[in-house]
Amino acid sequence: MSNQRLLKDIEFIVELDKMKSVLRETSLIDNSRRENDAEHSWHISVMAMLLAEYADDKIDICKVIKMLLIHDLVEIYAGDTFCYDVEANKDKEERELKAADRIFGMLEEDKGKELRSLWEEFEEMKTKEAIFAASMDRLQPFFNNYYSGGGTWKKFKISKGEIYARIAPLKKASQELWKFASNMIEDAYKKGYISTN
Amino acid sequence: MSNQRLLKDIEFIVELDKMKSVLRETSLIDNSRRENDAEHSWHISVMAMLLAEYADDKIDICKVIKMLLIHDLVEIYAGDTFCYDVEANKDKEERELKAADRIFGMLEEDKGKELRSLWEEFEEMKTKEAIFAASMDRLQPFFNNYYSGGGTWKKFKISKGEIYARIAPLKKASQELWKFASNMIEDAYKKGYISTN
Repeated sequence: MSNQRLLKDIEFIVELDKMKSVLRETSLIDNSRRENDAEHSWHISVMAMLLAEYADDKIDICKVIKMLLIHDLVEIYAGDTFCYDVEANKDKEERELKAADRIFGMLEEDKGKELRSLWEEFEEMKTKEAIFAASMDRLQPFFNNYYSGGGTWKKFKISKGEIYARIAPLKKASQELWKFASNMIEDAYKKGYISTN
Repeated sequence: MSNQRLLKDIEFIVELDKMKSVLRETSLIDNSRRENDAEHSWHISVMAMLLAEYADDKIDICKVIKMLLIHDLVEIYAGDTFCYDVEANKDKEERELKAADRIFGMLEEDKGKELRSLWEEFEEMKTKEAIFAASMDRLQPFFNNYYSGGGTWKKFKISKGEIYARIAPLKKASQELWKFASNMIEDAYKKGYISTN
């Protein structure tokens, strides 16, 4: 019955409201507070629209945006795992797989599978679209750190090497964005936002 | 020089962070606080992905999502105008046109025009995509009000007639969604979330 299908969609949509309460370590650029997963997912989706023209390969931007819109849904149950937190990242995959069963399982099977497959593609980071999407996901907190005077780089004493490693997908996605971001890292180092190599 | 173009894109992306501080009247479903434009824009974009299958006409869902991602950017300068506030809506268009010049003017001309044209299509609400997008924009606060026990309907004593008028685009976008939402309005009335006809 199609009405049951719609009811599941609406229950899912209601559940998504919780994304607005999943806090990330990254702060807003004005340093007023930490941002949340819903805000972050929106920001990177618009970034993808704007920066698609710099992709080295032809990409399906619609797929990239869909991926970015849903890439963090598992964090409703698994929470946000700070990218530079080695300890917390040890059981990240396990926590997120359980969360994926739960969140995508709320939908009718075909629909849940479709969204889950987009999320898995993002996580595997193999296709051009997933690599470009990962680049957006990493560039946004990078910009927020740079333009807020250091952000989590400064707060958690993240090294230059760790930041280069984190934005490595950019190298495969876009030479132009990679060059730009590399220059920003060197500049951030000079400005004292990053303290160690 | 393409680097200048990219620099403008990045300045625009940084400016977008302000969307996270533009408060709407609608509250989160858990009633913990009011939501902001970035969160709202994300929520309706995912809703469009999920509910596209109920559209009566074939729609370009990619265009709908892009429209929804940028439909509120003018509010960075024009502020959010509560849909049921008759007085504030009198100069809304004028305020938003000025804001559009400013926000889309930050980008290189071709890019600014492209985004502005998407925003104008949304505002005019004539194409199938714009009507579907408007439906998402109106359904999300509708759901948040219903599932939080009345929300702004209760707070501002909004009448049943005003709510039906607000969700009227749904009638053109999807018979199934319109029917579902109409039933929800009647139920909300019975529950006392809406006090007047």
